[in-house]
Amino acid sequence: MQEKLRSHIEEIVPLTDDEFLFILSHFSEEDYKKNDFLIQQGESVTHCYFVNSGLLKLVYDDDDGKQHIVSFAMENWWESDFAAYFTQTKAKLALQCIEDTSVFSLSLKNYEKLSTQLPKMQRFFLKKSNSGHIASQNRILSFLTSSAKERYEQLLQQYPSLFQRVPKTLLASFLGVSRETLSRLSS
Amino acid sequence: MQEKLRSHIEEIVPLTDDEFLFILSHFSEEDYKKNDFLIQQGESVTHCYFVNSGLLKLVYDDDDGKQHIVSFAMENWWESDFAAYFTQTKAKLALQCIEDTSVFSLSLKNYEKLSTQLPKMQRFFLKKSNSGHIASQNRILSFLTSSAKERYEQLLQQYPSLFQRVPKTLLASFLGVSRETLSRLSS
Repeated sequence: MQEKLRSHIEEIVPLTDDEFLFILSHFSEEDYKKNDFLIQQGESVTHCYFVNSGLLKLVYDDDDGKQHIVSFAMENWWESDFAAYFTQTKAKLALQCIEDTSVFSLSLKNYEKLSTQLPKMQRFFLKKSNSGHIASQNRILSFLTSSAKERYEQLLQQYPSLFQRVPKTLLASFLGVSRETLSRLSS
Repeated sequence: MQEKLRSHIEEIVPLTDDEFLFILSHFSEEDYKKNDFLIQQGESVTHCYFVNSGLLKLVYDDDDGKQHIVSFAMENWWESDFAAYFTQTKAKLALQCIEDTSVFSLSLKNYEKLSTQLPKMQRFFLKKSNSGHIASQNRILSFLTSSAKERYEQLLQQYPSLFQRVPKTLLASFLGVSRETLSRLSS
């Protein structure tokens, strides 16, 4: 499991063995079962998560009990309610397991410590943050410009494995359409 | 003008005079007129921009000639087609002046150079990128969960000055509604 985190970081910055051990000492390895919550709406967000294996959903439950999916997070993804994590406010979003999931968790204190003490890690976090920003900008663009059918096809093209792993109801929540509309799109 | 950039950076990391002069030497100050383009769709994106004064729109023109506004950028904002900037691909978006605008521009080469040579600046860029990521995640959430009327009210609350500075047609493009719907919302 540790090797996965290491090779993920080394895609951006090369590490010595000592550096990796230092980095690793700032993370905790945690295992969750399907349906477990890593973050609950309304609670403090103390950690962000690197997904070793499994699948998570970042969701917003509105006042009418309707669920909206902000993102899915699978292997090699980082996920959290980043607004709550970085600004130390209460979670607007929940992070919940769609499958049994193993993660490395990182507290904000350790995120700051790694950034300050190891410029390489700051560089790594900067690249990751820029990629996250780009992905979000693309999703905003697709909400503005694409029909539900086009968004469905973009998702299918980008993450074909999601369609095997995620129930249709959740895909519909991610696309912002009803379950019935999704059935029409995918038929 | 330079003092604005300095105090903006110093909100996150304190700088010595020498450090600021070093940083400044990596930027170019540029003035644009209303309707000028800083980035054109389909062209290379060489710079990102810090807005000294004025107002920009980041837009996507679709194949039917319809304009979609991804974001507005006013004083103290950083803007670019970040996907194209960071991955050195052609622009999907255009960046155009709504008012006469003065910016500091930063090439990707100089962004990388400042990040590498001055860990403080890497820290600054990381904070900015995280903030940008948070803002985008919030906008995605508002597309998923809010009605056009709610999005209109959120915008009014967050950036009241936009309503004086931006034509209604552009506000409608930002909210993803027609000009007629916007008139209903704002009446």
